[in-house]
Amino acid sequence: MIKLYTAPTPNGRKISILLEELKVEYKCILVNLDKKEQFKKKFSKISPTNKIPVIEDCEHKKIIFESGAILIYLAEKYKKYLPKNKYWEVLQWVVFQVAYVGPMLGQAHQYLYYNSGKSKFAEKKSRQYTKHVYEILEKHLTNNIYFAGRYSIADIAIWPWVDRHERHQIKLNKYPNTEKWYKKISKRPAVIKGYNVV
Amino acid sequence: MIKLYTAPTPNGRKISILLEELKVEYKCILVNLDKKEQFKKKFSKISPTNKIPVIEDCEHKKIIFESGAILIYLAEKYKKYLPKNKYWEVLQWVVFQVAYVGPMLGQAHQYLYYNSGKSKFAEKKSRQYTKHVYEILEKHLTNNIYFAGRYSIADIAIWPWVDRHERHQIKLNKYPNTEKWYKKISKRPAVIKGYNVV
Repeated sequence: MIKLYTAPTPNGRKISILLEELKVEYKCILVNLDKKEQFKKKFSKISPTNKIPVIEDCEHKKIIFESGAILIYLAEKYKKYLPKNKYWEVLQWVVFQVAYVGPMLGQAHQYLYYNSGKSKFAEKKSRQYTKHVYEILEKHLTNNIYFAGRYSIADIAIWPWVDRHERHQIKLNKYPNTEKWYKKISKRPAVIKGYNVV
Repeated sequence: MIKLYTAPTPNGRKISILLEELKVEYKCILVNLDKKEQFKKKFSKISPTNKIPVIEDCEHKKIIFESGAILIYLAEKYKKYLPKNKYWEVLQWVVFQVAYVGPMLGQAHQYLYYNSGKSKFAEKKSRQYTKHVYEILEKHLTNNIYFAGRYSIADIAIWPWVDRHERHQIKLNKYPNTEKWYKKISKRPAVIKGYNVV
């Protein structure tokens, strides 16, 4: 059994979506970010960086933090969505998501959504970063149906961030290949269920 | 032989430091970021995200992009700095570096250094993120000499970013355990050589 400490954010949803895809028995424990529960002592013990998501693999008594590491851990454990013959292709797109897609769109949410109107300069920079993220996704998806051959944890990592396109002020129809990829994945029953689980 | 396409940045230096630690035969190819060489067609072919570093493993005819993925690839190939019994501990700190330490300190460089004076609000937010990064590092290093047991690719990932502490306006002596860790690693011959190679 997997315990998932999570919240309804893109990084949290990556993991519940993967667990649904894997059809694994798991239990969600909500960490209330509005109440700053991620900074409580009890949570600090399993998450030294005070971030969600975190998983506890009860079978192996193992705790893993950082959504990128959790995706790799679960995909390796259950031998799905990280095929050996595509390992490095998948891995580099997962790392690209955690290192660039997530941070840059997350910053855009800060300046364009939560703190809109507080800094024209940061808003302008955020729009540039966001545009660059979507240009990279669009270019890659022009010649590829998924990010690394078949549907994989690379797609599961990126999808919940693209799902927030309104929040970072992207018109998805300007990026037709990304929109097509996004809509295809949106229809997967495990994605719908994993998205709404918290 | 490993070909390393790089530039004198924290992400580029992670890889040259690891290659020096591994005592592997490699060749550096400088990508001039001031001249925007990373956006040239030839480079786009090996780096679909137009970012440095990228490696070409001539032995296996394999190209890997994203510094986090490259660190894991090289450590697995040469079986060093990512021990099997500490695999997940190392991995989660490597992911934490690429997902939070790098992006947040990188954003701080944008607002506090390259574009200083252009947005008080973004400068304030950058200082908060930076402080949070250092609090996490300091807390973890209070009870640990390295990030994951022994010296590993987690330390190699984080060190070149802490090395830029002046640029993100951190007084390192306010974080004594981080400073001790930083100075210890600074003395390693491979770190000195890998840092200066480009």
